[in-house]
Amino acid sequence: MRRILHNEFCFANQNKLITREVFMSHYAFYISDGTAITAETIGHATLSQFELEFEHITLPFVENEELAKDVVMQINKRYARNGNKPLVFYTFVDQNLKEIIHHSNSVCFDVLKPFTHDAEVALNVAATPKIHRTHSIKEHRYDHRIEAMNYALANDDGQTTQNYADADVILVGVSRSGKTPTSIYLALNYGIKAANYPFTEDDMDDFKLPAVLKANKKKIFGLTIEANRLAAIRHERYANSKYASIRQCRMELREVERMYRGSKIPFINTTHFSVEEISAKIMSEMGLERYNY
Amino acid sequence: MRRILHNEFCFANQNKLITREVFMSHYAFYISDGTAITAETIGHATLSQFELEFEHITLPFVENEELAKDVVMQINKRYARNGNKPLVFYTFVDQNLKEIIHHSNSVCFDVLKPFTHDAEVALNVAATPKIHRTHSIKEHRYDHRIEAMNYALANDDGQTTQNYADADVILVGVSRSGKTPTSIYLALNYGIKAANYPFTEDDMDDFKLPAVLKANKKKIFGLTIEANRLAAIRHERYANSKYASIRQCRMELREVERMYRGSKIPFINTTHFSVEEISAKIMSEMGLERYNY
Repeated sequence: MRRILHNEFCFANQNKLITREVFMSHYAFYISDGTAITAETIGHATLSQFELEFEHITLPFVENEELAKDVVMQINKRYARNGNKPLVFYTFVDQNLKEIIHHSNSVCFDVLKPFTHDAEVALNVAATPKIHRTHSIKEHRYDHRIEAMNYALANDDGQTTQNYADADVILVGVSRSGKTPTSIYLALNYGIKAANYPFTEDDMDDFKLPAVLKANKKKIFGLTIEANRLAAIRHERYANSKYASIRQCRMELREVERMYRGSKIPFINTTHFSVEEISAKIMSEMGLERYNY
Repeated sequence: MRRILHNEFCFANQNKLITREVFMSHYAFYISDGTAITAETIGHATLSQFELEFEHITLPFVENEELAKDVVMQINKRYARNGNKPLVFYTFVDQNLKEIIHHSNSVCFDVLKPFTHDAEVALNVAATPKIHRTHSIKEHRYDHRIEAMNYALANDDGQTTQNYADADVILVGVSRSGKTPTSIYLALNYGIKAANYPFTEDDMDDFKLPAVLKANKKKIFGLTIEANRLAAIRHERYANSKYASIRQCRMELREVERMYRGSKIPFINTTHFSVEEISAKIMSEMGLERYNY
């Protein structure tokens, strides 16, 4: 494994000499005549397989020769720094711009190329690349995503329960168990109308599903979380409060999980999952249609 | 161009015979032992180059042989419907699961494979694929993204202006010009602390940048929009109001754009751009660091 590093000495605490390892980065570029989201996604996923430090540079909307030539200069400048060819992941509709980038001192990855030809053969249709077809406002059902996001914000945290008939999914759980980020992620990225409803301590005496939720039971998905993690998250908000105490967190989670099981509500423990993973699991389990294509 | 279609006759308006073309879909699968976000992104981008209708099926967390065999059945069922081999885009860390999928009646695209080998050569390091490295909670700076989203929600729509010292960017513009979706997208997807501040009619007498914004001028980015589009968006919210009138929209936009120019605030017209495109342009113009890797 080649890792270029050198020892750097710096003074800290006035007179203690500290040795710090400085890893000299590899450079990765993500470039496109569009948003560069596709190049970024595939580039990040590829490079995440390597135990190396990268500096990532995203350059979207490289739409003309002048900009492409400027990109080449930026790439070559990085190459000159450490003699490693930067890795360049790109999508370009304009073949001419593509060729300009190829003249840089880099290793180029034409991100859609390996799949386009095979897809043409399989579909028996020629590809007709057009600019700004993905991640643009012209995308299928774009408005649906913005509408869903407005829905998620208006129906966040149980602030109203009148619109549940329109919901695709209603996330439930105790305060700070991950409902809001998940609702918004589902809405903004997938066009799913996700409301969320927080269970408070008051709900937990003789804990049954509130009537307003019972009427929409098929749309309900529960979140739970480990008590330690919940206490830490709440502590950041209201330090040393009863609300953030481990005892309170344990009590709330025990009651909520008991209710989930009793009412046969599907649920997930969010402790070790990202909002992307939680969302993917919810869409999969609830069979929710994605509107992001 | 091969498009399987047939004419379908259906009755509408009681006695008018209407011919409707029904396109028989091609099937596209996005499969992974993780979230399948990478497979989905590259698959969508590839297929967006074809003028065909697809039915898209995403199957995340295919983590064992039993699930993989179930996926094969689902693929083969689609193949049996129209005799077209489904297109299957996948990322798998587990080689064994990959091979099971390969035994389906499909055209398989191993999404990371074409790049991994070339990256190994370029980096002179062997790839060490590990499960759940991208889009997971273990991702670099995941907490930063959730913190940024909480920041964006707390500092949405000018509800408080006290935290602007912490902002990476402050979006400004008239009501419904796209500030909220953009702020939240920047925060949740890229970990950028984006506040937003709405200009109201009251701001527009002798329109200067409010003092609270002046103190953070380098962080300000303006949004504007075409008056017709703004009126349509506002009309959906408050039909036939002065707020939604084309005259009011024109006046507000004229004043705001004049102020942007006078105060040398960078701005973008959002009318024809998606939230992804607006965000990419803002990050690029403001030189904002992305925290999503």
